[in-house]
Amino acid sequence: MVDFTIQLEKIEQAVGILKEKNIDCWLTFVRETAHNSDPALPLISPANVTWHTALIITSSGQKIAIAGRYEVGNFQSMGIWDEVISYDQSIQPALVEALDKIKPTQIAVNFSESDTAADGLSHGMFLTLQRYLAGKDYMLISAEDVLNSLRGRKTPGEIARLRAAIKLTDDIIDRITGNIKVGASALDMAKFVLGEYEKEGVPPAWDEKYCPTVTVGGDSPVGHLSPSDKYVAKAGDLIHMDQGVILNEYISDIQRVWYLQPEGETEIPAEITKAFNAVRAAIMAAAEVLKPGVQGYVVDAAARKTLMDAGYPEYKHATGHHIGRTVHDGSTLLGPQWERYGKTPLGIVEAGNCYTLELGAPVPGRGYIGLEEDVLVTENGVEWLGKVQDELWVIKVK
Amino acid sequence: MVDFTIQLEKIEQAVGILKEKNIDCWLTFVRETAHNSDPALPLISPANVTWHTALIITSSGQKIAIAGRYEVGNFQSMGIWDEVISYDQSIQPALVEALDKIKPTQIAVNFSESDTAADGLSHGMFLTLQRYLAGKDYMLISAEDVLNSLRGRKTPGEIARLRAAIKLTDDIIDRITGNIKVGASALDMAKFVLGEYEKEGVPPAWDEKYCPTVTVGGDSPVGHLSPSDKYVAKAGDLIHMDQGVILNEYISDIQRVWYLQPEGETEIPAEITKAFNAVRAAIMAAAEVLKPGVQGYVVDAAARKTLMDAGYPEYKHATGHHIGRTVHDGSTLLGPQWERYGKTPLGIVEAGNCYTLELGAPVPGRGYIGLEEDVLVTENGVEWLGKVQDELWVIKVK
Repeated sequence: MVDFTIQLEKIEQAVGILKEKNIDCWLTFVRETAHNSDPALPLISPANVTWHTALIITSSGQKIAIAGRYEVGNFQSMGIWDEVISYDQSIQPALVEALDKIKPTQIAVNFSESDTAADGLSHGMFLTLQRYLAGKDYMLISAEDVLNSLRGRKTPGEIARLRAAIKLTDDIIDRITGNIKVGASALDMAKFVLGEYEKEGVPPAWDEKYCPTVTVGGDSPVGHLSPSDKYVAKAGDLIHMDQGVILNEYISDIQRVWYLQPEGETEIPAEITKAFNAVRAAIMAAAEVLKPGVQGYVVDAAARKTLMDAGYPEYKHATGHHIGRTVHDGSTLLGPQWERYGKTPLGIVEAGNCYTLELGAPVPGRGYIGLEEDVLVTENGVEWLGKVQDELWVIKVK
Repeated sequence: MVDFTIQLEKIEQAVGILKEKNIDCWLTFVRETAHNSDPALPLISPANVTWHTALIITSSGQKIAIAGRYEVGNFQSMGIWDEVISYDQSIQPALVEALDKIKPTQIAVNFSESDTAADGLSHGMFLTLQRYLAGKDYMLISAEDVLNSLRGRKTPGEIARLRAAIKLTDDIIDRITGNIKVGASALDMAKFVLGEYEKEGVPPAWDEKYCPTVTVGGDSPVGHLSPSDKYVAKAGDLIHMDQGVILNEYISDIQRVWYLQPEGETEIPAEITKAFNAVRAAIMAAAEVLKPGVQGYVVDAAARKTLMDAGYPEYKHATGHHIGRTVHDGSTLLGPQWERYGKTPLGIVEAGNCYTLELGAPVPGRGYIGLEEDVLVTENGVEWLGKVQDELWVIKVK
């Protein structure tokens, strides 16, 4: 049987957030989820539907599901929804009737230019909703503030699941350390990692074509790219991996770096040590300022400045993102104010948020030093959710 | 290595369809596909992306991909795109520049109230596009006509893959026939089917919680519901299954029905034979009128009238839907003109379309008789893509 503990926690939390933000009603409106689902759906009701389906939560605590005749049973059996309404030819009459009973001033729906995790409503469905509610006074507003807090404030159940996924990944990373060797390609290493995931029965946290990504030596490009057999590890190379798993629906996201030290080398080359220390210092600079009340871009700036002041090029991504049900769990970003990030770097960090802290620096001819830690924001600052990498891991080539 | 044969076929087809429909430019605009993908994406470029990504195809045959720095490599390596453009902070300058070179009158984008498979653009992304193109003369129009033909007209490569998925499902159905017995619950039977899928290394065609759906006897509800251990097969019951697999990215979708004939019964009860014959006749009535040029609702009406004239209740779903990469492959529906189906029943059937023909009738106290066949529309009419069920399958209880 499916366990809806988390969804029950999240729906109660949603009622509180609606009250706090003075929004009467939140509507998740989906259909044919095989084509176009909504990332809000698994948070409140993990189900796939074909027909138009409306999930309504109000600030006064009502929880109403409206679904098609052949699918309504799945919502009835969840024990989540106070009222479950079935329809045949059109959802419009039941939906309008339910909203007319609630009489909301605003209806928050899932669209957002900034927050991908709050942008599950398709444009066609938005047009349908406008058509259904033509002539009514209800104001359709973005649910991004609701979803920002709802996704961002992890419940105890969610934090426990994140810890478990991270713990398992830390264990797998130990096994990887025992397996890295000269002569192995990036592809070989990725296959080893995916083999370990399979043994544990966990899927990769993102597309398995790029999870893990593996950077081997100085020529291997960095990014969400498929590991290739073109890049083969040799003595003197840095090996870098970015990876994570999904365990019990929650993910991990961790970057680690290893150095293949040539036989006879007695000291790690200075440019490698310097880069590692700069990357680690930048992560710690972010952790230092990451606490409730701070805006995302401030945390990003602390890390970014630290790394650039040490003489390294600016990294072209954010310093941190939420983790949760997905790797990029939406809402407030610890990122720079770049256009493509929209308003997310202006969001405010809250207690219960779980973030990555991640960045890196290239070492020409050697490879890439990148670290990524997963953290929980508490009232007092940062708690590391797993092991941290505070020194370069050296594998001696024999 | 990933094989892009189908995508190359579909992109060439798209250029022709844009010419035919006199549309200058088709834009697929996505980001963070883990949250909110677009069903058009796998058709032209199976990739997961995080940053804003624009895929542009023009009626003059240009194929341009614009993607973020860390993801652009995946598009470069596909060999599909003539021009691949990378960006860092915002996709806007590169996107606007590319469109300004094309100077399209209309830009077709993926939204549709009617066709879920043409509705991949989120409302937030639509607002972003409007903002990017503010002050420009380009008209944003729905790509539903483009996608209707592009998804609907199956290429030879796609038809071959559909045939293979259907062939495998027919084989598995034979094994199911050998396994149905008194005392087995709906859940037991579903587990057997999923076990066969696992042996063959194929996932179910839709959510495995409802694929297969299994209806056992007269009390078991019909619909996309999880099979339960509450309904246990006994002599005299009808057993009904709706199922399909995904093989090589293409699906099957087939309904079959069996009768558990009690020991000593010499003739199938008349109400069962009558219902089976009515269901089969309704399917044949649809097949009779299904040819290029006919509107979807006409095909639906032929089947619906046949079944209702035989005295059975009206089924609350469409008689047929496209099959392809997904079970409900969008566009023209062989369905009634109900509000929730939007304009899709008005669409025109084209050669190369692959449809299901499916409907059923309850037999009180016995169960549900439902059949579903997969067919290809040719210039001359219908070609069955697999075995058909033209008689009730009887399992004698000993």
